[in-house]
Amino acid sequence: MTTRHRAIRIPVGDRSIAGTLVAPDVLVPGVMLVHGWDGSQQQYIQRAHQIAAMGCICLTFDLRGHANDRAERETVTREDSLNDMLAAYDLLVGHPAVDPASVLVVGTSYGAYLAAVLSALRPVRWMALRAPALYKDEDWMVSKIKLNRQEVAAYRKSSSIEPQSNRALAASAQFEGDVLLVESEHDDVVPRPVLENYRAAFLHTQSMTYRVISDADHALTRAEWRDAYTSILVNWVQEMLNGARKKARG
Amino acid sequence: MTTRHRAIRIPVGDRSIAGTLVAPDVLVPGVMLVHGWDGSQQQYIQRAHQIAAMGCICLTFDLRGHANDRAERETVTREDSLNDMLAAYDLLVGHPAVDPASVLVVGTSYGAYLAAVLSALRPVRWMALRAPALYKDEDWMVSKIKLNRQEVAAYRKSSSIEPQSNRALAASAQFEGDVLLVESEHDDVVPRPVLENYRAAFLHTQSMTYRVISDADHALTRAEWRDAYTSILVNWVQEMLNGARKKARG
Repeated sequence: MTTRHRAIRIPVGDRSIAGTLVAPDVLVPGVMLVHGWDGSQQQYIQRAHQIAAMGCICLTFDLRGHANDRAERETVTREDSLNDMLAAYDLLVGHPAVDPASVLVVGTSYGAYLAAVLSALRPVRWMALRAPALYKDEDWMVSKIKLNRQEVAAYRKSSSIEPQSNRALAASAQFEGDVLLVESEHDDVVPRPVLENYRAAFLHTQSMTYRVISDADHALTRAEWRDAYTSILVNWVQEMLNGARKKARG
Repeated sequence: MTTRHRAIRIPVGDRSIAGTLVAPDVLVPGVMLVHGWDGSQQQYIQRAHQIAAMGCICLTFDLRGHANDRAERETVTREDSLNDMLAAYDLLVGHPAVDPASVLVVGTSYGAYLAAVLSALRPVRWMALRAPALYKDEDWMVSKIKLNRQEVAAYRKSSSIEPQSNRALAASAQFEGDVLLVESEHDDVVPRPVLENYRAAFLHTQSMTYRVISDADHALTRAEWRDAYTSILVNWVQEMLNGARKKARG
């Protein structure tokens, strides 16, 4: 078994001493799971356990303004949320057992939109987007809840948005990893044209898996729809991991 | 594969968000390797790699007053060094992949003496002591280099020291894990009576492996003596790990 080592500082009271951690050189994929607007990490914790059971290290978290941090909901901008994404990504990749070249980002709605934007800023190998939201780039620094709802809804009905006109679509257009796109059949928050815009952007991917959950609404309010999503996600992750392991064995 | 999760805080700028790390429930032994007085972590780094290759996570470090911190050599007390040991132990056991119930402490001379003392303060399953030093408890808070050399040398020639009169021997007398004791045949710093006192104290251990490196001096100045020590240590660690894995499989 090969090994790797890493210089560290060991805190002792108000000082520190130099140390070296030496560990077996076994790296596993890192998986980041991001909830949607007004969601929380609780929605992904069970799926995180299922994916971890396949030999990955998973991180799910509450975006600022959510869960126990709800007091800040009114002021959160996309810039804030993207900073949360970057911090979570960096922490995950900093985990001593995570392979920085094997990162999967899983996101729902607002979290899926952020995942697409993130993929242009950090190495991402796999991306699983459920009902990815879409916003115009403008007002990036305006509180998310202050965006004009009618304008957002109208934008989401636009077909053939030029990928270069939108951060999330532009990132998708340059993404070269594997993609899972999951649509809810009756989604009135992220309607079909949004998915079509993402599919039209994701043209340089290693693979594309596009699935529709029949009858489902945006929030997957019924257990059977949530189970269907879990099943689609877990099967796809298993296929991706099998492929990666096969490739690693040469 | 079973999984485990852990709540964490993810730092973002000057704030933090809540997260959960979920990982496969694979824990491995943690190994701490401690150099002697005027030594450094460099003496253990290769051995740390060899032990890590057997599937352990190893930590070696420079006690304060050593290596790049040599400026403080004159003032270091045993209390200081013990605090370094505790901090290193706690960091090792805090590693997400280390099994807190499977810690091995490896030490040489002053580091072996500190390891014995540590074993009374933290859970230690295995202890490998090469040429363990011995000091009277008194002057615990006095700089190590200000201890009276003649008195220390005379104490080390004493036979049948009452274990309860000495922190390191008292800890050894209550230690119930597995022990490797390695003596240098021609050691004029830690002479045979010291080893006899340790052996007389270690009477409640799960196992005892006592070995003498022929012809060797205290510092193992010849490569063949260092190789002999490495071989004794690595073989013993392998035996201990095999036993632990057999036990874990039931």
